[in-house]
Amino acid sequence: MVDRHLAHSQSVQAEEREHEADHPSSLVANFGADQPLALDCGIDLAPFQIAYQTYGTLNAARSNAILVCHALTGDQHVANIHPITGKPGWWETLVGPGRALDTDRYFIICSNVIGGCMGSTGPASTNPATGRPWGLDFPVVTIPDMVRAQAMLIDRLGIDTLFCVVGGSMGGMQVLQWSVAYPQRVFSALAIACSTRHSAQNIAFHELGRQAVMADPDWRQGRYFEQGTHPHRGLGVARMAAHITYLSDAALHRKFGRRMQDRDEPTFSFDADFQVESYLRHQGSSFVERFDANSYLYLTRAMDYFDIAADHNGVLAQAFRGTRTRFCVVSFTSDWLFPTSESRAVVHALNAGGARVSFAEIETDRGHDAFLLDVPEFLDISHAFLQSAAAARGLTPVRS
Amino acid sequence: MVDRHLAHSQSVQAEEREHEADHPSSLVANFGADQPLALDCGIDLAPFQIAYQTYGTLNAARSNAILVCHALTGDQHVANIHPITGKPGWWETLVGPGRALDTDRYFIICSNVIGGCMGSTGPASTNPATGRPWGLDFPVVTIPDMVRAQAMLIDRLGIDTLFCVVGGSMGGMQVLQWSVAYPQRVFSALAIACSTRHSAQNIAFHELGRQAVMADPDWRQGRYFEQGTHPHRGLGVARMAAHITYLSDAALHRKFGRRMQDRDEPTFSFDADFQVESYLRHQGSSFVERFDANSYLYLTRAMDYFDIAADHNGVLAQAFRGTRTRFCVVSFTSDWLFPTSESRAVVHALNAGGARVSFAEIETDRGHDAFLLDVPEFLDISHAFLQSAAAARGLTPVRS
Repeated sequence: MVDRHLAHSQSVQAEEREHEADHPSSLVANFGADQPLALDCGIDLAPFQIAYQTYGTLNAARSNAILVCHALTGDQHVANIHPITGKPGWWETLVGPGRALDTDRYFIICSNVIGGCMGSTGPASTNPATGRPWGLDFPVVTIPDMVRAQAMLIDRLGIDTLFCVVGGSMGGMQVLQWSVAYPQRVFSALAIACSTRHSAQNIAFHELGRQAVMADPDWRQGRYFEQGTHPHRGLGVARMAAHITYLSDAALHRKFGRRMQDRDEPTFSFDADFQVESYLRHQGSSFVERFDANSYLYLTRAMDYFDIAADHNGVLAQAFRGTRTRFCVVSFTSDWLFPTSESRAVVHALNAGGARVSFAEIETDRGHDAFLLDVPEFLDISHAFLQSAAAARGLTPVRS
Repeated sequence: MVDRHLAHSQSVQAEEREHEADHPSSLVANFGADQPLALDCGIDLAPFQIAYQTYGTLNAARSNAILVCHALTGDQHVANIHPITGKPGWWETLVGPGRALDTDRYFIICSNVIGGCMGSTGPASTNPATGRPWGLDFPVVTIPDMVRAQAMLIDRLGIDTLFCVVGGSMGGMQVLQWSVAYPQRVFSALAIACSTRHSAQNIAFHELGRQAVMADPDWRQGRYFEQGTHPHRGLGVARMAAHITYLSDAALHRKFGRRMQDRDEPTFSFDADFQVESYLRHQGSSFVERFDANSYLYLTRAMDYFDIAADHNGVLAQAFRGTRTRFCVVSFTSDWLFPTSESRAVVHALNAGGARVSFAEIETDRGHDAFLLDVPEFLDISHAFLQSAAAARGLTPVRS
């Protein structure tokens, strides 16, 4: 998978990533020793920083702010060119002028999660106590920790109540956590393709990915930056595994079936004969260009630990009791990572808690990844939910 | 995953495996230079050997022979203690006195597939041209190649027609291939949890496993035996990935859920906090004790290439036209690796080809692995199918 040229380019990219971790191409909110982040593991993290992007304008009433929460391998570059890959923002289907998250109407904030690698403090950041990257000395963080850090950022921006919190997958977990931890501060919540706790099968896939990273001798117990190595092979394998779970059997069949790559007959070798093999190899190698291996360990761990009910005596409905937030929960028929049954459990708990909730299961064969794709029904439902919530909030367009 | 003690024990086991590849604890059929195996890739493999086990007694009419075809990580030790692991045979639920494959009544044969690592010629065997293990110089083999080799073994044993060919997963692929390649020689066929072609998702999971093996620097381009290394980390990761696909979400949930391993609270570390993590790590490390990494590459490749329809102008029914074999096709409701829809496609093709076929979808939450487990309905159906076929074949118990 790796030749010498690629190894050189990966080394350059690793330096870029390392630089991005401390000096991101983003806005940065710094929190000093007097403003620690109280982590679930019992450690106070200080100092720390949060890298974030904003789009649109905050209105005078400070009532039109939307927080977008990113997924496991996402970041704050939701609707602008990515500083490392040069690619468009990861959610431009949903965020932009005239789109569901209308940048002409709302003030959109997206921050890199704590534990991430794009400028919020994480294992790739420099540990001020040692002057070296944190590596595995970085404390294990949780979804509630990510949300606590985001709340500090929202405070810093002088915003009391968010008009909406939006996210898919790990982002959806953060949406649910926001609504549980700060119910007064969330006017509406759009939780997509997610769950209130990670299933055994999902933990299994994450553990597989972590073992793939840690099995790579170039991982060096997480000290690869200092030792000039990069566990690109292990991280590539982890990404391949995860990527299969983001798609559906039907989507893979439609996209690739058993079609061969640039040939008609099998080569009787271990070359990538099938298009799906070639595609997966590409997914693995392009991911390692932009993502930090240790961050991958930390963020998968955070998802595994997530369990809202466990924090509420095992009763999920208790977590949402008395909430005034307006919820919209969305699932996709072919998503086997976060199947509709998980979303239904959320909706039942919300109903039992007396919440106002709408639920949509979108028919698509595109799997978990559907929330990132141009799936018209999903975009329409998101748009309608935001419109209705905006009316209830008394929001008028910023530029009307 | 690996400490020094483990590394030592794995090195001993690797020597055992290497020895087993040339000098198996099994019966061996040798085929000399004058009896080459004509492989699909165009190469004639000669000399080669097939390691096999038998149970029960061949009757005077030579009409009571059953060939058991093993799955990807199985071998010929279907109903005896395994020479490396010391564990019972892998299909003792089905094979034994009074069981569906009654060793008091039938003569059961199971051979290690070509490309395997338990004594039939494969990449771990010594290449007579070099005196070194074949490694990646071994030609890529296919499911039809495996079956062609088995037919040569059956010839050698003086058996014209097999009373039944039985197998699950990759074994089921061989069953279907037998019925297509040698319809006159197969009186009945029991094909379990299989398909006539590998899906894109299944190819993707296999490619992931191969990349995990090849990413391990100890793989050494397949020359690990000579270099005294063993790609146990990569093969362990490959096995973890495969193992997830052998189970079901429901089975993982029932078995493990989110239960912690020997603790009540999370450790906030990368230890195996959850039971499912600990289980998967065990699956990975115990597999590498008994299996050869290169064989894993070859056998997954053979499954990926399998496509009966492609060999019959894209029309599956053509493959089975006019067959007189009695078929029983079995699937399991929670098997997402070879879902019921795949078995239905086989049944439809058999029907269209005018075959005599019965079909059973067994309700179970145990996933693909169900065919190896004590699932009473499955065992009963297998028993009934064999009984009915035996009556049609005019077989009476050997010892009555």
